[in-house]
Parts: sequence; C-alpha cells; structure tokens
Amino acid sequence: MSKKIVIIGGVAGGASTAARLRRMDESLEIIMFEKGEYISFANCGLPYYIGETIKERSQLILQSVEGMSRKFNLDIRNLTEVIAINREEKTVTATDLRTGKVYKESYDELVLSPGATPIKPGIEGIDECSNIFTLRNIPDTDNIKHYIDEMKPQTAVVIGGGFIGLEMAENLHALGIEVTLIEAGNQVMAPLDIEMASMVHSHLIEKGIRLILEDGVKAFENKGKKVVLQSGKSIETDFILLSIGVKPESRLAKEAGLEVSERGSILVNDYLQTSDEHIYALGDAIAVKDFVSEEKTMIPLAWPANRQGRLVANNICGRKEKYKGTLGSSVAKVFDYTVATTGNNEKTLKGLGRSYKTIHIHPSAHAGYYPGAFPIAYKLLFDPQTGKILGAQGVGIEGVEKRIDILATALKGELTIYDLQDVEVCYAPPYNSAKDPVNMLGYYAANIIDGLVEVAQWYEVDGVVGEENVILDVREEFELATGKIDGALNIPLGQLRDKLGTLSKDKTYYVMCQVGQRGYVASRLLKEQGYKCKSIDGGLKTYSYVKR
Amino acid sequence: MSKKIVIIGGVAGGASTAARLRRMDESLEIIMFEKGEYISFANCGLPYYIGETIKERSQLILQSVEGMSRKFNLDIRNLTEVIAINREEKTVTATDLRTGKVYKESYDELVLSPGATPIKPGIEGIDECSNIFTLRNIPDTDNIKHYIDEMKPQTAVVIGGGFIGLEMAENLHALGIEVTLIEAGNQVMAPLDIEMASMVHSHLIEKGIRLILEDGVKAFENKGKKVVLQSGKSIETDFILLSIGVKPESRLAKEAGLEVSERGSILVNDYLQTSDEHIYALGDAIAVKDFVSEEKTMIPLAWPANRQGRLVANNICGRKEKYKGTLGSSVAKVFDYTVATTGNNEKTLKGLGRSYKTIHIHPSAHAGYYPGAFPIAYKLLFDPQTGKILGAQGVGIEGVEKRIDILATALKGELTIYDLQDVEVCYAPPYNSAKDPVNMLGYYAANIIDGLVEVAQWYEVDGVVGEENVILDVREEFELATGKIDGALNIPLGQLRDKLGTLSKDKTYYVMCQVGQRGYVASRLLKEQGYKCKSIDGGLKTYSYVKR
Ligand SMILES: Cc1cc2nc3c(=O)[nH]c(=O)nc-3n(C[C@H](O)[C@H](O)[C@H](O)COP(=O)(O)OP(=O)(O)OC[C@H]3O[C@@H](n4cnc5c(N)ncnc54)[C@H](O)[C@@H]3O)c2cc1C
Ligand SMILES: Cc1cc2nc3c(=O)[nH]c(=O)nc-3n(C[C@H](O)[C@H](O)[C@H](O)COP(=O)(O)OP(=O)(O)OC[C@H]3O[C@@H](n4cnc5c(N)ncnc54)[C@H](O)[C@@H]3O)c2cc1C
Ligand SMILES: CC(C)(COP(=O)(O)OP(=O)(O)OC[C@H]1O[C@@H](n2cnc3c(N)ncnc32)[C@H](O)[C@@H]1OP(=O)(O)O)[C@@H](O)C(=O)NCCC(=O)NCCS
Ligand SMILES: CC(C)(COP(=O)(O)OP(=O)(O)OC[C@H]1O[C@@H](n2cnc3c(N)ncnc32)[C@H](O)[C@@H]1OP(=O)(O)O)[C@@H](O)C(=O)NCCC(=O)NCCS
Repeated sequence: MSKKIVIIGGVAGGASTAARLRRMDESLEIIMFEKGEYISFANCGLPYYIGETIKERSQLILQSVEGMSRKFNLDIRNLTEVIAINREEKTVTATDLRTGKVYKESYDELVLSPGATPIKPGIEGIDECSNIFTLRNIPDTDNIKHYIDEMKPQTAVVIGGGFIGLEMAENLHALGIEVTLIEAGNQVMAPLDIEMASMVHSHLIEKGIRLILEDGVKAFENKGKKVVLQSGKSIETDFILLSIGVKPESRLAKEAGLEVSERGSILVNDYLQTSDEHIYALGDAIAVKDFVSEEKTMIPLAWPANRQGRLVANNICGRKEKYKGTLGSSVAKVFDYTVATTGNNEKTLKGLGRSYKTIHIHPSAHAGYYPGAFPIAYKLLFDPQTGKILGAQGVGIEGVEKRIDILATALKGELTIYDLQDVEVCYAPPYNSAKDPVNMLGYYAANIIDGLVEVAQWYEVDGVVGEENVILDVREEFELATGKIDGALNIPLGQLRDKLGTLSKDKTYYVMCQVGQRGYVASRLLKEQGYKCKSIDGGLKTYSYVKR
Repeated sequence: MSKKIVIIGGVAGGASTAARLRRMDESLEIIMFEKGEYISFANCGLPYYIGETIKERSQLILQSVEGMSRKFNLDIRNLTEVIAINREEKTVTATDLRTGKVYKESYDELVLSPGATPIKPGIEGIDECSNIFTLRNIPDTDNIKHYIDEMKPQTAVVIGGGFIGLEMAENLHALGIEVTLIEAGNQVMAPLDIEMASMVHSHLIEKGIRLILEDGVKAFENKGKKVVLQSGKSIETDFILLSIGVKPESRLAKEAGLEVSERGSILVNDYLQTSDEHIYALGDAIAVKDFVSEEKTMIPLAWPANRQGRLVANNICGRKEKYKGTLGSSVAKVFDYTVATTGNNEKTLKGLGRSYKTIHIHPSAHAGYYPGAFPIAYKLLFDPQTGKILGAQGVGIEGVEKRIDILATALKGELTIYDLQDVEVCYAPPYNSAKDPVNMLGYYAANIIDGLVEVAQWYEVDGVVGEENVILDVREEFELATGKIDGALNIPLGQLRDKLGTLSKDKTYYVMCQVGQRGYVASRLLKEQGYKCKSIDGGLKTYSYVKR
C-alpha cells in the first residue's frame, strides 16, 4: 500500500520536500498544510518588492496552489493550520481557517517545515503602536506596502541590523524615506567580525542611513511615533520595522513531546529525523549542526531549507542520506556593497576556544588595469596546525560572493589553505587577476603556517610603539598623506635594503603598508637579514576601517 | 655560498619566479633576462588597450625594470636575449640587443619561462602584407595602435576564433571598424563544445561581426588588401589580425638537448624540472599534465604560469612541491556574453575514448523575480560510474564564471557530482537562487547516475520520430509559438497524469520542454507509471541553439 506523507509548511522546506517526494515516488499520497494563503513564495524577495525593485506582486509567488497541485499531484491545503500532532495515533489536527472546521488527518510520515517567526519582545508601549511591522510573509508585505502607500511615512526606524534589517533600510531609503537603523550590539551583520562590519557602517552612513549602535529600544511612546532608547535618546518616526531576529516555530513539536534545544529549535539526527523516527523536521525550525564547529545551532537561511527538503524526501523514500551540516554561507546587498560570509567568524572561534589564525587581504575585484577594479576586503580564518579552512568574510562592490562561494566549496569539501593555492580559476582581466584572491589567501595563509612571516592583527597595533617595538611603515612617502600611525618610522620598501644599517636587531619591527602585501615582502627581507619583525596584517586599510 | 639563479623571460612566469625566489631567500643572486624592453606587462590587457577600454599605456606595465629590481634586489637585464644554453658548463650565452654585445653568464639553477609565440604560417602572399599583425607584447600593441591611428582602417579581418581573436574582434569593433572573423574549424573557442559555441556564434552575428566558419585562408593578395579563402570567396580588408594560436618558444631548450614534446613543448616532471635537473621550465613553453585526462598537453594561460612560477621558486629553495596539473579554466568576455570553461570538453573525452555523461541546464543568473535575471547555459561532463567531474562550460551574461570557478574548485579538489549537492553557496536574490546552478548540476547528474532518468542529447533528436518513438512536448500550448519539433505530441505537464491513457507502453517517449526541467519531471511521472521514456537534455533551448 502507498504511504501517506503529511507536510506542515508550504514554502521553502515544505514545498521542496513535496516536489522531490513526488519525483521520487508517484504512488505517495502527499498532503501539504500551509496556514497562510500562499505556498512557495519568495520570502527573500519581499524587501525588494517593498522597495519597488521587484515591480509585480505576482512575481513573489513561485508556485500557485493550483499549479503546484496539478504538476506534482499534491493535496495542498492552504489557509489551514495544523494545531496539534498526535504521535500515538499518527495524526495531526488541523483547522481550516476559512471555515473554522477542525479535523484530523493521519500520516505514515510527518514532515515539519514550519519556519521561524519574527521575535517581538514585550517592550513597553509595543502593543499600542499602530506603525510597527515585522516582515515574514506576503500579508506582512501587503500590510507594510499598504501603510507606506497610504500614510506616506517620511521617516522610519529599523530596529535590528541583521540582513533583513539592512535590506529593509536600503529599500525604505530607496522610497525616499529617512531611515534610522538601531542596533543594540556594536555592529551590524552578526556573521561579520567587527573590522569587516566597520566597512559596512561607513557605507551605510555614507548612503545617508542614520546608524545608531550599542543602544537598545527602551520604550515606544505616542503609539510608536516616538522610539525611546536605553541611552535616553529618543527618535520621532512615522514607521517602525522590527527585525531583531526570528525564533523557531516549534510549539507544535514541543507540545507533541519532540526534543527541542534550549533556544526552542527542533532537534534532529543526521537524517533529519526528530526524536520520533516518523517525524522529520527541517528548515528554520531545526537546530542544525554547524559544519565547522559541529555545535548545534540555528541558521535560518534558504539554502539549508531547500537542501534539507530534498534530503528529507529522499530519506522518506528509503534512501539514507545525511545532512552534512550548515556553513551559514550568506550574502547581502547593502547599497553598493556586497557582504558575504561562510563558516565561523572570529567571535565564534574565540568563544569556542578554538585555535585559529586570521588574515586580511584587499585585492582588486579584477585586474587593476581593467576599468572598475574596486578593492574587496577579505578575511580568512584557518587552523594554524592543519590548515583547515574555518571561515571567510568579504566586503566590496563586485565579485565578492564569488570568492566566498569558492571558499565555501573548499570548506565543505574539507580542502585546506594549501589546496586554495591550486584552485584554478578562470582568468581574464574583466573577471579577476592571474593570481586570484582565493589563491592569495592560500599563499598568504601558508606563509604563516610555514613560518615565513609572523603577523600582528589590527587590534595589536595601538600601544605597540615603545622601547622595544617600532612601527615601520614601508609605503612611499607620498602615501603617508592618506593616513599613518603616530610614531611610525617610514622607509619605503625600495629603500629598505640600503637603510638596513639604521635598524636595530634588538627591536621588533611591526611592518606596515597600505594592505599588508609590501609589509609582508619587507618582513621577509628583515627576517632573512636577522631582524625581529611582524607584518601588520591587512595593513593600514584594515586598521583604519575599524579605528576611524 | 649563495646560489645563482638565471631566469629566461621576464613576464608572467619569469617575474613570478623571481619575486617568490627573493621572498624565499635574501641571499640568492637572481638574474632575469628579457629580450623585450618590458618585463612584467599585462599580456592579457593588450586587446583592451587597443580597443581603448584601458586608456593609459602605462597601466599595461605592472612592474618597471627599475622598481622591480629595487624592490626585489634583482639583476634584470631587459633587451637582452639568451641565445644559447650551455649545459655542460652551466652557462647561458646572451646578446645585449642595445649594444650587440654577446656574453656568457653562469648559473646554478636555470629557469625557462620564454612563453609562446604567435603562429605565422607560410600562407601565399603573407610576406608582402603591410597590414598584417600578430599580438603578443607591447611592441606588437604599439604597432597595431599606430597603424590604426594613422591608417584609420574601415574594415578588418581577424583570422582565428580563439579567445585572442574574439577579444580583438570585439575591441576592433568598438573602434568602429567592420570586422570579419574567419575560423577554419566549425566553431569559435575550441574549449567549448559545438552546441555551446553556437550561442557565441549567434551573439557575434547579432553584434555585427561577420562570421565565417569552416573556411581557411588560402592567400593574401594586393599586399594584404585582399584575403582569399579556401572556398574561393575573397574579402577586401584594411587590416588583418592573425591569431590562429601560439607555439612554444622552445628553440633554446631543443638546441640544448632538453626533451620536448612532438609539438615542441618543453617536457618537465611534476616538480617542473626539465630533463636536466638544474633547469626548470614553466608557462606557455611547457607541456603540462592535463588534470583530467593526465595527458601531456599545451595550455598557454596566465594562471598556470603564475602558479608554476611560485612552485619553481619553492623547489629551487629546497621544497619539493608538485604541480598538480592544469584544468585549463578559462573565461572570455565576448561582447555582452561571458564564456567560461574548465576541465575537458566532450570532443576531448570522445577523442580519448573515455566514458562520460553530459547534461545541460539553463538556470537564471539569480532569482528569477529579481530584475536582470538572464539565463545562463551550463554544460557539465561527468563520469557515469564514479560521479567524478570531468569538465564544465558556461555561456551567459552574468554570474557565468562564478559557477565555473566553483566547479573548477570541486574538480581540482576531486569532489564528485554528489558533493556538488552540498556546495553551500551564499544566497540572496540579487546573486543566485536558493538552489544554485551548481547544486542543480549535482542533483541532475545524480538523478542520471542513480537511474531516476535517462536522457537523450540534442544530437539524438533529429530522426527520432517514427513507429517506435514519440517526441512528447510537455510545455504549455502558448509556448509552442516560440518553436517546436515537427511531429511532436503536445501534452502540458499539468495535464499529463489525466491523459496517460492516451499514451502507449510500447513506444518510447522522448520528453521535451523548454530547458529540460519539466521534461525531467514528466519523465519521472512516466517512468513511475511504467512508460518507456527519455528526457531530452537541455530541452528545446539547447537543441535550437545548435540546430538553427
Ligand atoms: C524578508 C526575508 C528575507 C529573507 N532573505 C533571505 C536571503 O536573502 N537569503 C536566505 O538564505 N534566506 C533568506 N530568508 C530566510 C528564508 O526565507 C528562510 O530561511 C526559509 O524560507 C526557511 O524555510 P522554511 O521552510 O523553514 O520556512 P518558511 O519558508 O518560512 O515556511 C514555513 C511555512 O510554514 C507555515 N506554518 C508554520 N506553522 C504552521 C502550521 N502549524 N500549520 C500550517 N502551516 C504552518 C508558515 O506559515 C510558513 O509559510 C529571508 C526571510 C525573510 C522573511
Ligand atoms: C593578447 C593576449 C591576451 C591574453 N589573454 C589571456 C587571458 O585573458 N587569460 C589567460 O589566462 N591568459 C591570457 N593570455 C596568455 C598569457 O599571457 C600567457 O599564458 C602567459 O603570459 C604565459 O606566461 P609565460 O611566462 O610563459 O610567457 P610570457 O608571459 O609570454 O613571457 C615570456 C617572455 O620571455 C621572453 N623571452 C623568450 N625567449 C627569450 C630569450 N631567449 N631571452 C630572453 N627573453 C626571452 C619573451 O620576450 C617574453 O616576454 C594572453 C596572451 C596574449 C598575448
Ligand atoms: C519552488 C519550489 C517548490 C521548488 O521545488 P523543486 O521542484 O524541488 O525545485 P526546483 O524548481 O528548483 O527544481 C529542482 C529540480 O529540478 C531538476 N532540474 C533543474 N534543472 C533541470 C534541468 N534543466 N533538467 C533536468 N532537471 C533539472 C533538479 O535536479 C531538481 O530535481 P530533483 O530534486 O528531483 O533532483 C520550492 O523550492 C519553493 O517553494 N521555493 C520557494 C520558497 C523558497 O525557497 N524561499 C526561499 C528563497 S526565496
Ligand atoms: C607582477 C608580478 C611580478 C607579481 O609577482 P608576485 O610578487 O609573485 O605576485 P603578486 O604581486 O600578485 O603578490 C603575490 C604575493 O603577495 C602575497 N600577498 C598578496 N596579498 C597579500 C597581503 N594582503 N598580505 C600579505 N601578503 C600578500 C602573496 O602571498 C604572494 O606572496 P608569496 O608568493 O610569497 O606567498 C608577476 O605576476 C608578473 O609579472 N605579472 C605580470 C604578467 C602576467 O602575469 N601576465 C599574465 C596576466 S596579464
């Protein structure tokens, strides 16, 4: 007899599971419950529809209930909320939201892809606000769009500097609205480390976003027309978007006695089965294994949901395929910048007490002599013993996520920084350099592991100057006009060999240049000649992004 | 005592070797001979300087003789040609081209990076042409630019449809010159297979290039003002660029008794040593190991030269590092298109008698609902037993080389098509889809290996219709207006289940749609229901590119 599969949630994870199930097995009975009106919509496109980059609302809906039902022979029940899972009898209880009818539906295998819901904390005055919104689905989008069209807000406050907050800040700004972005932490975009996030901060300010860091919301007053901050500051606003994160929709799972994590994420094994082997879970609602740290964590992104959907379907159909864990590869467009990350960042690695090394480079997006070669800032984290890649971050204008994707591929493939040297990219001047940034990262990291150079980080620079230590700036004299470190000694790289006599073997030279490359070359020279030195990683550029 | 290293050739391979040598060892004596005036110039930028995309000639020179000498403490001898290698005495004989002085220079280790020189065949009348050029270096560029500035040619003939020919065609066209491109083979860009090259052909024609395929040059008449073809056709022209390929500059090596391949490439071992262990060779002049086929071949590209330069330096300094072989990853901008490849193509695999499967997909560059989502055509070649990746090709407008780079990374990392499923790319709508094209290739290829679907290639379609076989077009009726196969039966995918009764279990259905995806879904349905079927890979799109 054919099996009956019930799926809760009809978007990224749920719809992907359903489609693959049908392609695997024509005989399955597949029922997909979705409490909203729409299935298979483009969550990720919502901010761009609000900002009118995407013009047609219809483009947000990838599959209609009718179309998908027919194409994949699915029993899709939208506007129907599952309100209980009855594990003993293998049924779910559902409410048809159109009619209010409550009924049970049996299953052989149950799939939970209920997603995550925006966090709405009990801040004073929040319930009285008539102008506060969160953004998750089409109705939210319609509400926001309707409010903007009708009320024509002049000013907006976006609370939370995650990627949805930033995308919304940009899209509201694109509508001519004056935007204040409030972030309680000391940086936007948590997957970045602070020195990389600092570049984003500058860019946001440059683009006219009023950025407030390290200040939380204390209260809303005057029905949300006034936002009062912890610092005592207050901001008048016509519109508020609350985007401080999401929490897993795991109430059903919990009530059914399935294991969940402390943060409420549904726990699954490598085959994406919950503590009940006939119940699979995936997407934003589950705790995934962080591919690098192997810790259970919450990474609410679309790639994992889509990937897991296919695996769940395969496993239900009798395959036994493991989900390998999540890197958290992510990218966001922030005005002219592209910001991309993969793997663990320095904060995480530090928190885990893991040994790591980090490097920063600032290569051009493509050959410097071909027009439009903007620099990209890349950071790589790697294991100083094994050369294992641990994470990477990139911020720049063009070609940013291309290299982060390569690094993500290398990371998942368990390649090392040595392997990065052999990554044979396609090269032509409009696209990159004959030594690609990815190769450079491999070369530079290997130089550190191999002991060719010792580096100092941007946060070690301040206070270095003293009896024992000298900052040696090897840039050309004319470059000093663009900024320098107080007390640094300047000897351009081309003159260094001739002036070695003026240096002392008792001191340690912290060698600095614009981006770290000449500093490295100079360090090699000094080291070979018997001088103690460290190269300041990322050069003045990395240092000044975070210090200015 | 410190070693003395002599390098022949001061550009991609030679200069990279010299720089790394110095960074490795301050004590080495390093002499670099370059017969031209310039070292370290941007070969790859030359066409763009001619086309005035690159405005300043000075931008083509990455390192000056003086600057590089000082920075790296090198003895750089430009305008000095090495005319003999005297292996027994470990010297080279050089001619100073400024003075005519001939002298010897001893070496402990010798490095050959002399590159490759444009092929100039003895075509009738070629020596009388005053308007024929080849392009390799700065003097060639100056000559071409001078000729164009002075003679203001209205028409040009580019002979050879490789990437230099195409780049020059585009750049000449950008100057308002009417360009005819002549290619003796049946396609441009040899690393592509014909169905992919066909897209480039259409694009060239669309952009106003007069494209002549399968016709070679028989003679030049009237001092090159007339080009006569094998077919008897003739073309009047003001300017001729000859770009039919390059041959290794291995005369010195041969004369010194070093082993060379049949085609004249210098033979080296994995450590890039020639048959004389004190002589290393690299770059365009050597025969590299093709990473996929492991055959010795010639792949004259900048990435290998740069990579090998660093390895040669390391090996001279006592490391023992192997060059892993070359994929031949390449990319070219052809007007609005980006054309990228890696690994082996179908022609090569067929020639080698290797077992392979091929698939074609046509995904959007990024989420379809985000503006500017142009389709990209990708082709993947893989081993049907092991899932090993063998090669990939991409043609499209945006994001093309990004996925080829990922595939090249996977290929070099010896990942399989199954691993492609787990490549966790950074996803946001402006950059890709939650299932990236790379994941799709992994999914689709796995479906073939796992026996979920059988595919037919574009070249199997013609003549399929008959007693036994039916072409089943599962597109919507309105789509048929854009083209269809004669004799095909049309049942839209959404109606297929209802109309199964009209099909016969005795026939084989060749299922076709626009790009192959619905064809695949329909094939699954049919197969599950017991019908014989094949999905037409790449759909009507791949078929019609090559057939129209
Ligand atoms: C504005 C926005 C922008 C985003 N941008 C990006 C991006 O650029 N890149 C990226 O990687 N990710 C992005 N995401 C995240 C991405 O959309 C999610 O990670 C992904 O959709 C998760 O898939 P899922 O199936 O777990 O949950 P969802 O796609 O949210 O689907 C869950 C569905 O289950 C339904 N449901 C829940 N409980 C029940 C119930 N009891 N009964 C019936 N139905 C139920 C919900 O109504 C919901 O429709 C974005 C998300 C948002 C909101
Ligand atoms: C117009 C053009 C565009 C290109 N575009 C691309 C591209 O987009 N992507 C890509 O990957 N590759 C491209 N290439 C190829 C790339 O430039 C070469 O693969 C690379 O430069 C090879 O490096 P090499 O060191 O072997 O040779 P070269 O860089 O050519 O250097 C060899 C040098 O050796 C010198 N020499 C030779 N014999 C002697 C001697 N006896 N004594 C002294 N000196 C000697 C020569 O004068 C020459 O300057 C392009 C090449 C050209 C000409
Ligand atoms: C739209 C949705 C239902 C698609 O599910 P899907 O059918 O599994 O996914 P796709 O349409 O991308 O198709 C993928 C399938 O087509 C196959 N395929 C793709 N291109 C192909 C081609 N040219 N030829 C043959 N097969 C092809 C793939 O192999 C895969 O099939 P498989 O899983 O059986 O191997 C689901 O992803 C969804 O609802 N998405 C919207 C929500 C969402 O993802 N939100 C977050 C991002 S905005
Ligand atoms: C210009 C040329 C001399 C450069 O040689 P090079 O110094 O080895 O190469 P780069 O300038 O790219 O620098 C790479 C070095 O800097 C290091 N590096 C790069 N960025 C760094 C950073 N931010 N911090 C520290 N080190 C860095 C790399 O690790 C590498 O050093 P290593 O090899 O010792 O590990 C040589 O490549 C050349 O002549 N190129 C022009 C010709 C050519 O390539 N033509 C074909 C393409 S147009």
